[in-house]
Order: sequence, then C-alpha cells, then structure tokens
Amino acid sequence: MINKPLHQQIKEDLLNKIEYEDYKVGDKIPNEVDLATHYKVSRPTVRQAINALVIDGFLERRKKRGTIVRQRKINQEFTHVIESYNDEMTRKGLIPKTKVLSLKSEVANEEVMQQLELKPGESVYKLVRLRYAEEDPIVLVTTYIPLSLVPNLKEIDFTTTRFYEVLEKNQTPIKEITRKLELITADETVSDLLSVEIDAPLFYFHSVGYIENRVPIEYSVSKYRGDLNSFIFNISS
Amino acid sequence: MINKPLHQQIKEDLLNKIEYEDYKVGDKIPNEVDLATHYKVSRPTVRQAINALVIDGFLERRKKRGTIVRQRKINQEFTHVIESYNDEMTRKGLIPKTKVLSLKSEVANEEVMQQLELKPGESVYKLVRLRYAEEDPIVLVTTYIPLSLVPNLKEIDFTTTRFYEVLEKNQTPIKEITRKLELITADETVSDLLSVEIDAPLFYFHSVGYIENRVPIEYSVSKYRGDLNSFIFNISS
Repeated sequence: MINKPLHQQIKEDLLNKIEYEDYKVGDKIPNEVDLATHYKVSRPTVRQAINALVIDGFLERRKKRGTIVRQRKINQEFTHVIESYNDEMTRKGLIPKTKVLSLKSEVANEEVMQQLELKPGESVYKLVRLRYAEEDPIVLVTTYIPLSLVPNLKEIDFTTTRFYEVLEKNQTPIKEITRKLELITADETVSDLLSVEIDAPLFYFHSVGYIENRVPIEYSVSKYRGDLNSFIFNISS
Repeated sequence: MINKPLHQQIKEDLLNKIEYEDYKVGDKIPNEVDLATHYKVSRPTVRQAINALVIDGFLERRKKRGTIVRQRKINQEFTHVIESYNDEMTRKGLIPKTKVLSLKSEVANEEVMQQLELKPGESVYKLVRLRYAEEDPIVLVTTYIPLSLVPNLKEIDFTTTRFYEVLEKNQTPIKEITRKLELITADETVSDLLSVEIDAPLFYFHSVGYIENRVPIEYSVSKYRGDLNSFIFNISS
C-alpha cells in the first residue's frame, strides 16, 4: 500500500469512479456514513476527501439532495490565444463537432460595415455555426467575412473545415484579434440551440480578427453557455 | 462650417447632448421626423447618425418606446492588468467609491485554505467591499488575506485606502494574479447590494494574487454587474 493520507486515497478512488462514470453527472454519491463504512475510515476523513472534490469542482453539495457529481466546465482560452475552436478542444482531449446552421452572402448591415471597415453596399458571407464538445452544444457563433477578401467561401464544408485553415490556405492568416466580452441571457431561439433554459446567462463576445496591415477579415458574435464554460487569466506585473 | 458629412455633424451634436445630459440615460430622444425637421436634413441622414450611435453603444432602439439613451458599460481591464479598482476607475474618468460591508478575522475554511496554501486552523482576514463608479454599484468583492502575512489589517479604513497600497507599504506588492471567470445569477442578497433584479447575470471571478516567490497573499471572489461592465481583450499572434 502506498503511504498516502487516507483522505487522499479516498479522494482518488472517488475521482476514478467519477471519471469512469460509476458516478455520472447529476448522480448523488453515497452519504458520509455509508462511505465511511465502505472505506473503513472515520466520517471526518470522508468529509475531507469530499471537500477537496467540491473545491476542485467535481462534486457539488445541494441543500436537500446531498452531494452530486457536477458538470465539469471547459476552461476556454479563447480570450488570450489565437486558435481555432477545434484545435483548442482537441488539445483539451474533447471531441469537437460543428453543425453549420447557415452560410449565405448578403449586403453588410451598418454594424458589420463598421466593424469590417466596408463601404455601403459591400457584401459579406454570413456563417452561422453551432459548436459542440463531445455531445454538448458549447457556443453559437455568427461570423461575417468580406466577400472581396475570401473568394469561394460558399463551396467550403465548415462541418469538417476550420475557418482559420481556410484563411491560412488563402495566404491571409489572422494576426490579431480584439474581443469584447459582455453578458446576455438566452432568448427562445438560443435556448433551443444551446440546450439551456430561457434567460440562462451566456458569455457574449464580439470579436474582430485582423490580417496583416490590420485589415479586418472576420467579425464574429459568439454566445457561450454560462454553465459549461469558464475563462482563465494569468496576469504578471 | 466644417466640411464634414451631415450625418457626422448630427451624430456629434447628439453625442454632445448625451454627454451634457440634455438627453439623460433612459430618456427617449426625438423621433426621426422631428430630428430631420430640427436639423433640416432628410430622414435617412438622421437615421445614419442614429445608427452610428446605436453601434457605438450610446443609443438603443426599444421596440415600443423608440430610441433611448443607453447606460454606458465600463470597459474593465481587470483581466489583464494588475491595478487597483480605484486607480482603474480614476484613469477612466469615473469617481470610484468603496463601501466596507465587513472586515473580520476567522479561521480559513477548506476552500480558502486550499487557495491560500494555508495549514488547517490558520486564520485569515475576510474583507467584504461594495465598489461603485459614480453612483452605481459595480462589483461586490470578498477578499481573504492570511493574518500571518499582513499584520494589523483590521485598523485600516478600506473606505479610503486601497488594499494594493497596503501591500506596497508592507513591502509585499502583488507580482502575479490568476483569475477564473464564470457566470452566475444574482440571489436575493446580491441583487439588493448591486441594485439588479434577482437572477440577473453577473460576471463571477475567483482570483488569487501572489507576491514574490509565488506566495499567495490574496484570494478574492468578485461579482460584477453584467449590465454595466464589459471586458476587452487584445490578442496577437
């Protein structure tokens, strides 16, 4: 037997059961008394193991229901790395999936015109994608791309092709992005698409992506589920 | 007369009226027909000026009420700069104000212990502050500080003194911060303090501040109003 504190051994055993889905998301785990009996330890030792898993975000105490397995959030690095959604998810060991909801060209409206620095009457592609991690919808993204900068976009299947890949092949890779983050709540349409309640809070990003010489090539509006995503920042002086 | 397009001149005149509060936040501005008559221009010209102000976030179109002056959001740089709340607000031309809701010492709970790398039984100061910009409550912050690292914290008046100032005087300035951003909604207490509806969405930060040698000195939980704050990110490849 390894010389680890008992609460640490119990924590690891519980974590294993969560990871191998003996305990699934939303499941109630056994209460302290039953766990203490099972592991042949005192209740405070069990409590210490559970506390650690609560802090790490694997378990959650609910007032009347007991302790349940929590839905894990995905730590998005969207705010400080230029990386495609697919690459980021894959790096995190999650299987990404993209559903293309629509792809068409249209005359840019005032907002799109201003963000992409277009002249009145200029056209853009409007690409709407719903993106998943494993089976969960994570983010709804609407992207506007000037017709003049990326020809033949309409022939691309964005179910399997990343937009940043297209830009690289087009010799116009993204060099810089500015993002603004606000909060909104889900309306009826969005709540259906993202599988959340109406009025559920969402991260709401407006992004402009620039190629060389600070030419804007992409204007995106993204709605990330508030319950499945978190964002991490490291700041140094 | 300056040689600017008419819609630009009208935009600037309207902006002046918003800034000097001829039109106050929540006020309806005159309709397009009245504005066209007043400025002696066509309706499309007025509409262009209004559109630009809607995009810039100064005006908002409401379905039945017409066009109203919008509450401006504060672009927080909290996610990428180490700076005190007061300094950031002042730099933005806003008058900061802090209300200290409580300051006491207590034994660190499991979560605080883990984040501040304390031993069981060690004590922390718990400082709860409500912070304003002008007259609006912006953020509710609970900060935990190890008793052993910052002596005599209890004698400080945090209504007028910034915590980062205390750390500098104490020869233990913050060198690094990690922040995690999630979303939550306001419960009854928080909705009262931040003057928002129950269930209004809030930015929810967990931050750990480190001094030299990566010693944690501050663990903070912050709830920013979703309606008054936004966060900006600039990313380069």
